[in-house]
Amino acid sequence: MTEKRALEGNEAVARVAYAVSEVCSIYPITPSSPMAEYADVWAAAGKHNMWGQVPDIIEMQSEGGAAGTAHGALQTGAMTTTFTASQGLMLMLPNMYKIAGELTSAVFHVASRSLAAQALSIFGDHQDVMAARTTGFGLLASSSVQAAQDLALVTHAATLESRVPFVHFFDGFRTSHEVSKIDLVSSDDIEAMIDSNLVYEHRSRALNPDNPFIRGTAQNPDVYFQGRESVNRFYNETPAIVQKSMDRFAKLTGRQYKLFDYYGDPKAERVIVLMGSGAETVQQTIDALPKSGFGMVNVRLYRPFSNEHLLAAIPTSTKRLAVLDRTKEIGASGEPLYQDVITALAEAVSEGLRQEMPKLIGGRYGLSSKEFTPAMVKAVFDELDKDHPKNHFTIGIKDDVTHTSLDYDSEFQIEGDDATRALFFGLGSDGTVGANKNSIKIIGESTDLYCQGYFVYDSKKSGSRTVSHLRFGPEPIHSPYLIQSANFIACHKFDQINKIEILQNAANGAVFLLDSPYAADKVWDELPEPVQRIIIDRNISFHVIDANKVARDAGMGKRINTIMQVCFFALSGVLPRDEAIQQIRKAIEKSYRSKGQDVIDKNFAAVDAALDHLHEVSVPKSVSSKRPLDEVVPDDAPKFV
Amino acid sequence: MTEKRALEGNEAVARVAYAVSEVCSIYPITPSSPMAEYADVWAAAGKHNMWGQVPDIIEMQSEGGAAGTAHGALQTGAMTTTFTASQGLMLMLPNMYKIAGELTSAVFHVASRSLAAQALSIFGDHQDVMAARTTGFGLLASSSVQAAQDLALVTHAATLESRVPFVHFFDGFRTSHEVSKIDLVSSDDIEAMIDSNLVYEHRSRALNPDNPFIRGTAQNPDVYFQGRESVNRFYNETPAIVQKSMDRFAKLTGRQYKLFDYYGDPKAERVIVLMGSGAETVQQTIDALPKSGFGMVNVRLYRPFSNEHLLAAIPTSTKRLAVLDRTKEIGASGEPLYQDVITALAEAVSEGLRQEMPKLIGGRYGLSSKEFTPAMVKAVFDELDKDHPKNHFTIGIKDDVTHTSLDYDSEFQIEGDDATRALFFGLGSDGTVGANKNSIKIIGESTDLYCQGYFVYDSKKSGSRTVSHLRFGPEPIHSPYLIQSANFIACHKFDQINKIEILQNAANGAVFLLDSPYAADKVWDELPEPVQRIIIDRNISFHVIDANKVARDAGMGKRINTIMQVCFFALSGVLPRDEAIQQIRKAIEKSYRSKGQDVIDKNFAAVDAALDHLHEVSVPKSVSSKRPLDEVVPDDAPKFV
Repeated sequence: MTEKRALEGNEAVARVAYAVSEVCSIYPITPSSPMAEYADVWAAAGKHNMWGQVPDIIEMQSEGGAAGTAHGALQTGAMTTTFTASQGLMLMLPNMYKIAGELTSAVFHVASRSLAAQALSIFGDHQDVMAARTTGFGLLASSSVQAAQDLALVTHAATLESRVPFVHFFDGFRTSHEVSKIDLVSSDDIEAMIDSNLVYEHRSRALNPDNPFIRGTAQNPDVYFQGRESVNRFYNETPAIVQKSMDRFAKLTGRQYKLFDYYGDPKAERVIVLMGSGAETVQQTIDALPKSGFGMVNVRLYRPFSNEHLLAAIPTSTKRLAVLDRTKEIGASGEPLYQDVITALAEAVSEGLRQEMPKLIGGRYGLSSKEFTPAMVKAVFDELDKDHPKNHFTIGIKDDVTHTSLDYDSEFQIEGDDATRALFFGLGSDGTVGANKNSIKIIGESTDLYCQGYFVYDSKKSGSRTVSHLRFGPEPIHSPYLIQSANFIACHKFDQINKIEILQNAANGAVFLLDSPYAADKVWDELPEPVQRIIIDRNISFHVIDANKVARDAGMGKRINTIMQVCFFALSGVLPRDEAIQQIRKAIEKSYRSKGQDVIDKNFAAVDAALDHLHEVSVPKSVSSKRPLDEVVPDDAPKFV
Repeated sequence: MTEKRALEGNEAVARVAYAVSEVCSIYPITPSSPMAEYADVWAAAGKHNMWGQVPDIIEMQSEGGAAGTAHGALQTGAMTTTFTASQGLMLMLPNMYKIAGELTSAVFHVASRSLAAQALSIFGDHQDVMAARTTGFGLLASSSVQAAQDLALVTHAATLESRVPFVHFFDGFRTSHEVSKIDLVSSDDIEAMIDSNLVYEHRSRALNPDNPFIRGTAQNPDVYFQGRESVNRFYNETPAIVQKSMDRFAKLTGRQYKLFDYYGDPKAERVIVLMGSGAETVQQTIDALPKSGFGMVNVRLYRPFSNEHLLAAIPTSTKRLAVLDRTKEIGASGEPLYQDVITALAEAVSEGLRQEMPKLIGGRYGLSSKEFTPAMVKAVFDELDKDHPKNHFTIGIKDDVTHTSLDYDSEFQIEGDDATRALFFGLGSDGTVGANKNSIKIIGESTDLYCQGYFVYDSKKSGSRTVSHLRFGPEPIHSPYLIQSANFIACHKFDQINKIEILQNAANGAVFLLDSPYAADKVWDELPEPVQRIIIDRNISFHVIDANKVARDAGMGKRINTIMQVCFFALSGVLPRDEAIQQIRKAIEKSYRSKGQDVIDKNFAAVDAALDHLHEVSVPKSVSSKRPLDEVVPDDAPKFV
């Protein structure tokens, strides 16, 4: 029986990478840091890899050093990995050309992130891995936490056979920091995937005195070109090797991946091609569209790019095709995936393998974790239907300067009644996110429900707003975008209701939990007009608790997270109340064990007190407030702002 | 009247870059080093830029530092440049994304070079600039020394107007180290090209307290994507701005360049598209092919890539088209230029701008300064004629593993009788190359003849073989490949005739000058069989001098370069003998002034003695030797070799 666990993407990947590595050279960078940190913590705790050893975790002075260490360790025959993103990956590029040129089996795990251009950004898109696509590394994309774990293992297996090194990547934050309930790969699966003969061959290619060999030389015009071409054979064989790894993995786990995974109507006329987490959104949107006519290709193996496998995936019925790139390559005649797809199709037509070119357009989406929603997917499919679909478009922004953007219907959403969707508004470091992660673990690991958690911080981290997006439901969750229709909303800091539209995404009949210094019979008049209006219009069930008072009384100062968590379980009904409380107590013991029994006792007291202070507000029939939300830029702000 | 000078590519470019810069941040790397070194020497000598200042030349700890310094200097509003190649450019990439993202006018000059992969190589191809094509920098390619000088200036002018920073690149060694007689751009030309209003605008964008401005921030998902798209307008306008700069340059100098320069039959059916020095070879080969049917596009502005201008350059008559890339992007569905061209054409067909796709193939050539000759160009045109032309081919190597290579007729060559083509075999540091550079300057600057010098070393530099390739003729020389049919060959070290086929490229009736310890009546029997055979078969006029004896007698030790130079002038007849000797004496005075009058006097004595010791060999009618050339790997070599 497969073990299920609620893990964040980084942990799921690091778990596999750690198991199959002897050396992890690290220099943590957002959003890949947790992979390096997990590896470091596990090694410090003496956790073994698949060979019963504790891997060497080597932290260097920069990602350049981490890549150099990886290169060196690989030359000694060690099974080696590293974890990075963005500018970190940039510093690895020179070593990557060499590692690939020397046909060295290796996997670098990348939580892909924007590059610093007009500004830096810690958020996710594919600019970094696209800058590495010239290096000769393979590129394999994972579109979910489950896939990231699974394909991490597939990639480690494939690189040993192909000798082509790989970047295995997944979307920074969206996948790296999403907590999701997944089927764990077992130690047995890992051992079955990693062929010990191939590991032995990898070791036998080491530079050592017993096996003298020369590598890393200088070549002149007489032989360099020939040497550069001598790798062709290996790259030609790699796509089939990766597919074989995926097939072996499917036999072990039942989860089948393909180099290019097609989803939708087998006779689709309109098809979207993309990679990364956005593919899950497209897939889910297709389910919500009419049964016939729509399809999508989830690109998993991006390098080496196999025209043959791509063509096999795109139905011959395809008349209109949109390629979506989560990157911007300014100055090129098109973004990279778009160019690869157009090249493959044009060659196929030229060689008579395909009757005619579909109408093909390309677009950019999701730069720096910009949301990519079902409404945007629908807009792309709608664009494909037009007589003159726009090429080189953007989706998800409003470009009123160069008019690249497609309009989309922001009201369009596909979230039904089949899942609990909960939003929590807190402040960085107030414990909200931690409590929510505990809630996911509680629900994920003590029920059959699937669960997903995603936490929106800004780059200022501690002290600024956090929004937790939690989904729970009986079916696996494929929604890598923020909650659009929430049936539970909690606000952990009262004055936030004056600043942002907390209830904007409330579903009809949703539950609203507010941490309020005002009692249930006083709070209504303290709300701004838009909040009152939504509560009435959408029949919101409104509850308050003075969590700060409860926390103070329990001797916990300002730590209200446990209290609010109890209220969430009490109101949402995801778990029977008693079971929930028992699980919360367990989680408290685990989370605060290192802080001493006193902290645990205070938390227990808060749990016990919480429900007594939770009260439903009797909602009046009409709006009483005339106060709008606070202005983002107040009228009396200095002119410089 | 335009001044003509024999300059190497690096000097021609550095001269322009220096004139228009206030800061040059440097970290010299082969083959770009001379640009940085010239700038450093000129600044040390107090040479002024166009504003009458001595630029700051700042050498850093690595190319990463040089790029950071450039970025910093640009932020202060300084006119800034740097020079680099290969791994050096790799270290600049992170800063380049930022410089481009911030829309900063700047030009980096790159003598493009291979990247270290299976081995490092110091030689030339486009792998480095292709790795920079994702950064947002414009890329402008120069295909000759003349173009490199001219387009360096065009690029500096264009970046000020477009605000898009540029990499201006030209082929490492082939262009960077070729000495060629070119029309100099004058100070007046430079001043006319650099618009002082735009320089003022560049300065006004500086970060300084008088003009407070924020740049280099962090952006979050709310605005990063929009910010990244906000540059579109600038990139859209850049191709037209570059063409405008080219047109202004043409008005000043008469030399007209286009973004995509078409050459050949206006109704050509077979067309080659490529960039860099190879374009000159294709152009020259087209002249030697039948008048109708052949054409080529020399790509100058590669980024931003203008589909519109490319389509205007490719005749609508084109039925077959080959795109040649001087790079390898392993794992992609095609090399970068090929992908851009196929994208542009497929979009044009899709939008009804063009009737149908030509048959389009792509190939790789010239990696790491691998020769690219007219024979190879012809092979590509021949391939285009086939029913099933090979795609993703290589040309210039024999690939008997993955069979990518095209065969070519190595006998095919197009060198006629219109020029002197001289080959000199010497040893690194023996003075041969220096003397030949002097010879080019003498001929180039005291006659109307055009001239070209190219010097083949290997990466071991001092002490290993050098081959100097010198061409002189009444027409401008567009032959960026090694001499294939030499009418003068000199061997400056006797025992080389046993090791390599020195006369392999001798034309019928060529002159052969050998530095020989054996007298004219004794030397014949000391020659190996293949050398004797070629001398007889090709009616070679054979001369010897015991240059080592002459040098010793003149007190010059082993320095035979001046002596051999005198013999070259005496035998080749490029200049009247007396004039040549007078010029050689002038050159000696200039070259050795710093070494003292004694050295100069010894050289003078050697010049005077040289002709007395030069003797023609009376060539027998038949071969007497049975000795083959030495084996490269002797039979008694250790097994490890």
